[in-house]
Amino acid sequence: MAESQNLLLQQIKEQGDLVRKLKAAKESNERIQEEVSKLLGLKAQLNTEDAAPQKFTLKTPKGTRDYNSQQMSIRNNVLQKITTIFKKHGAECIDTPVFELKEVLTGKYGEDSKLIYDLKDQGGEILSLRYDLTVPLARYLAMNKITTLKRYHIAKVYRRDNPAMTRGRYREFYQCDFDIAGQYDPMIPDAECLKVVTEILDVLDIGKYILKVNHRRLLDGMFEACGVPADKFRSTCSTIDKLDKLPWTEVRTEMINEKGVTPEAADKIGEYVQLNGSSELAVKLLSDEKLSKSKSAVEGLEGIKLLLHYCELMGIKDKIIFDLSLARGLDYYTGVIYEAVLTHPIKIGNEDQTVGSIAGGGRYDNLVGMFDSKNKQVPCVGVSVGVERIFSVLEAKLAAGDIIVRTTDIDVYVASAQKNFLDERMKICAELWNAGIKTEQSYKKNPKMLNQLQHCEENGIPFAVVLGESELKRGVVKIRNITSREEAEVPREKLVKELETRIANFGLKEMNGS
Amino acid sequence: MAESQNLLLQQIKEQGDLVRKLKAAKESNERIQEEVSKLLGLKAQLNTEDAAPQKFTLKTPKGTRDYNSQQMSIRNNVLQKITTIFKKHGAECIDTPVFELKEVLTGKYGEDSKLIYDLKDQGGEILSLRYDLTVPLARYLAMNKITTLKRYHIAKVYRRDNPAMTRGRYREFYQCDFDIAGQYDPMIPDAECLKVVTEILDVLDIGKYILKVNHRRLLDGMFEACGVPADKFRSTCSTIDKLDKLPWTEVRTEMINEKGVTPEAADKIGEYVQLNGSSELAVKLLSDEKLSKSKSAVEGLEGIKLLLHYCELMGIKDKIIFDLSLARGLDYYTGVIYEAVLTHPIKIGNEDQTVGSIAGGGRYDNLVGMFDSKNKQVPCVGVSVGVERIFSVLEAKLAAGDIIVRTTDIDVYVASAQKNFLDERMKICAELWNAGIKTEQSYKKNPKMLNQLQHCEENGIPFAVVLGESELKRGVVKIRNITSREEAEVPREKLVKELETRIANFGLKEMNGS
Repeated sequence: MAESQNLLLQQIKEQGDLVRKLKAAKESNERIQEEVSKLLGLKAQLNTEDAAPQKFTLKTPKGTRDYNSQQMSIRNNVLQKITTIFKKHGAECIDTPVFELKEVLTGKYGEDSKLIYDLKDQGGEILSLRYDLTVPLARYLAMNKITTLKRYHIAKVYRRDNPAMTRGRYREFYQCDFDIAGQYDPMIPDAECLKVVTEILDVLDIGKYILKVNHRRLLDGMFEACGVPADKFRSTCSTIDKLDKLPWTEVRTEMINEKGVTPEAADKIGEYVQLNGSSELAVKLLSDEKLSKSKSAVEGLEGIKLLLHYCELMGIKDKIIFDLSLARGLDYYTGVIYEAVLTHPIKIGNEDQTVGSIAGGGRYDNLVGMFDSKNKQVPCVGVSVGVERIFSVLEAKLAAGDIIVRTTDIDVYVASAQKNFLDERMKICAELWNAGIKTEQSYKKNPKMLNQLQHCEENGIPFAVVLGESELKRGVVKIRNITSREEAEVPREKLVKELETRIANFGLKEMNGS
Repeated sequence: MAESQNLLLQQIKEQGDLVRKLKAAKESNERIQEEVSKLLGLKAQLNTEDAAPQKFTLKTPKGTRDYNSQQMSIRNNVLQKITTIFKKHGAECIDTPVFELKEVLTGKYGEDSKLIYDLKDQGGEILSLRYDLTVPLARYLAMNKITTLKRYHIAKVYRRDNPAMTRGRYREFYQCDFDIAGQYDPMIPDAECLKVVTEILDVLDIGKYILKVNHRRLLDGMFEACGVPADKFRSTCSTIDKLDKLPWTEVRTEMINEKGVTPEAADKIGEYVQLNGSSELAVKLLSDEKLSKSKSAVEGLEGIKLLLHYCELMGIKDKIIFDLSLARGLDYYTGVIYEAVLTHPIKIGNEDQTVGSIAGGGRYDNLVGMFDSKNKQVPCVGVSVGVERIFSVLEAKLAAGDIIVRTTDIDVYVASAQKNFLDERMKICAELWNAGIKTEQSYKKNPKMLNQLQHCEENGIPFAVVLGESELKRGVVKIRNITSREEAEVPREKLVKELETRIANFGLKEMNGS
C-alpha cells in the first residue's frame, strides 16, 4: 500500500514536471489541459478522502459531449424514425454489454485496433469498450449458437480517434445497426438492407443521396486480374478505400510505395476504379477480357447483377450506383459492400456543409466462425447508419434557426391568479396526472400570474387551467387558450373531460399544420 | 517496445503459473475461468496480429449479460412506460457520456468509490465509467451554469460489485432517474417525485408497495439529541442504513464497536429508529422532549409534515410511511430521503420471490456546488427507479410461462404457393413497406408453403398474402387470416387498402382482449 502510494507520488512529480515543461514551451492550451487533467486524476487517486472544493477543468472527456434537451429531442426523434423502419422489416431488438473481453475484439479491426479503449486492470478480466456493434453481434450469435436472426441494435460505440467534432465525429457515438444472419439465397437479404437504408434516408429527408455498391469478390478478382499477389489484396483494398478523400495519383503512389504493388498493376487498377454505372456495367464487365478469366470477379459481378435486379423490383434502382472504387475499410467483409452518401452539400443557415458518407455496410460471412471452436460459419449481412452526422446536420439547422424543436410536450399548466392556491393546484395536478394528461405547475407557493403565463408561452404549452377564488366558490375553473388568450369557464367536475377534448382537437390541428 | 514486450511475457508466465496453481488446488470453476480469461487477455496484447482461430471462453464480462429479443421486449416496454410518466410531468431528456474525468467522481460516493471502473491510461485523460446518473447531472448543471432543470435520464451505469445476478443485480445496469433542480419552495418538487414513483409502480403493476420517507436533518438531530458527536453523524447514518438487512442488535454492535458510538447513545437511537407512522408521528415527535431541542430535528420534522400534507392532497397518502430507520447509503443527501419497497414477495410460477427496494432518492442541495469554483449551489431533488429488479421479476414470470411476449410486430407475411414467385414477392413487399405496413417474407427463392405458414403461426403474424399463378393472371391475390385459416381474394390494386383495414380492425380486437 505504502509502496503504491510512493509510486503514485513519483508519477505525480513526473507529470507535474511535464506540465511545467509544456507551459514553458507554450504548447497549445488543449495539450496542456489534457496533461493537467491527467495530473489531477493522479492526485485524485492519491487522496480519495479529500473533500475540499475541487479545482479542475469542468469538462466532458475529450471527444465526447453532453446532449442537452433540444439535442435529445432531435436525437430521440431521429432514432424513433429509424427504429420504426427497422421494426417494419421485422427486426428484433437485442443488446450487449458496453464492454467485452479484450480478446473478443482482438484481430477484428486491422489497423484500427489501436483505437480501442481498454479498461484498467483492476484485478479481474481484461476488458475493452465495444468498437462497433457488429463484432459483439457475431460473439452473441456464436456464444448462443444462433444460426438465424434479424436484429437491430441502437447503441453507443467507442473509438480513441482524433475526431473532427464539428463534422459530427466523436469518440463516443451512436450506431444504428440492422443485420440479417442466416443461410439464405443470394442477395435477397442483401437487397433488403439497401431498401431499409433508402427508407431511412427518405424519412429523415436531409438531402439527396446515392447508395454506392460493390463486391469484395469483384475487388479480389480485379486485383488478381491486374497482377496483385493474393497476400496484398487486403492492404491494397484499404488503400482503394481512401479514394473518397484522396485523388487517384496519391492513392496510386501509396499502392506502389507502401503496399508493394507494381506500377503496371496500379495503372490497370486505376482504369477499373474509375468505372461506375448500373447493371449494364456489370453485364459489360462480365465479358471484360481480364475479369472474365477470374472466378472471383465473375462471382462478384453475377452477385451485383442479381442485387441490382432485386433493387429494380423494389423500386430503388435510381438510388443505387455500382461503383468499382468503393472498398470499405474493415477486414471482415466478404461479399457485397455498400455506402450511402449525400450527393449535395446541405444548406444550413447561409452556409453549405458537405456531409459525405452517412450509412455503410456489407456482407461478412466468416466473422461468426472466428468465435466458434469448430469454425462453424453463420453468414451475415448488415448496415449501419451513421446517425451522428445526421444529428450534426439537424443541430446546425437548429442553431441557424432553420428548425424549431419542443423539448417537452406538456399540454396543461395549472396556474392560479391569487395567493394561497397551492393546495388546490396540487389536487388538480394529481387529478390530471391520474387521467394521463401531461401537466405542470409552478414549484413556488405563490407564483406571479405573469410568470406562469410566460412559462406557458415560452414552452409552447397550449392550455392553462386558471384557478380563482370566485370561480371555485361557484364550482367552476377557467381554461385559457395560451395562443388566442381566450378563456372559458367549465364546471370543476368536467375539467378532465373538457381538457381531453381540447387536447385531442389541438393535436388534430397541429397535424393539419394550422 | 521490446522492453514492454518482455514485461508482458513475464506477466503471461506469472499468470500461467497462477492458473496452474488454481487448477491444482481445485478452485471453483468461476475463479479459474476468470484467471484464464485474464491470461488470454495478456496473450492477446502480446500478439495482436495473430489471426489463428481463437480459443477462449466465449462469455460476456463478469456481472454483465446480453439481452435477447424477448428480454428486450420486456425491457423496452417497461422503459417506455416509465418514460411516458416522466414526460407527463414535463421532464426533459438529457444525456451525458458513459465515462467522466476520474476527478469528477472522486469524493462523491464514500466507501463505494472502490467500485468505480477506471479506464486504462492510454496516454490521454484519466477516465472512469459513470457510477450513477446523479453526479454526471450535477457536473452538467455546474459546467453549463444551469440553475433550473427538470430532467429524466435513462441509461446504464457501472459498478465493480460482486452482484447476485439471480436477484437482478449486475455490474452494468440501467437507472431511470427523474430530478428537479432549482430554488423552489419547500417540499413541492420533493412531493412530485413521490407522486412520479407511485405512478410508475402503479402502471408496472408488479405488486403492492410502500414508500418510506425520512429526512437527513431529522437523522442528524436525532444523533445530536442522543449524544453522538457531530463528526460521527455520517458514519452512524451508514450503519443505520443496514437496518433493512440486519437486526437491530447487530447494527447496535457495529455502532458501538466500529463507529465509536456510546452504548447509551446507541440505545437511545434504537428507540427512535423503531418508530414509523404518518404525519401524526411527525406532530408527536415535534413535542418530543429531546428532539424538540434540536434545531435540525425540528427542521426535518416540519419538512416531513409538509411533505405528507402534499402527499395527502395528491391522493398518495396511503402509500407513504414516515420511517425513522430509513437512512440511505450515499453521502450527498441533505434533506428528504425516500425508498420504495415491495411489501409482499412476488409469485413467479410456484415460487415466492422477495424483491425489496425498487426505487430510491432524496434531496441533495450541495452536490452541484462541489463542481463550482465559487461553490454556487443548485438545490436538487430526485428519484432513481431500479428497473433491473423489475426486469428480473418479469423475466422470471416469462420463464415460468406466466406472461407471453412478442418480439416483433409484423402484420403481414408475403408468401407464395408455387415456385418462381420471388420477383412478385419482392414487388409486393416493397409496396407494403412503402405504405408503412410491417411486412416480412422468406429469404429463400422457393420456400415451402408449409414453412411459410408455420413462420406466421410461430411469430404471431396475423395475415399472409398468398401469391399464386392463377390468381395473378386474374389480377387478384389471396389474403389469409392465420388464426382462422380463412382466405379471401382481393383485387391486386386494392391489396394495400384492404390490408390496412384488416390490420386496424385486428388492432381494435386485440385491445378489447378478444
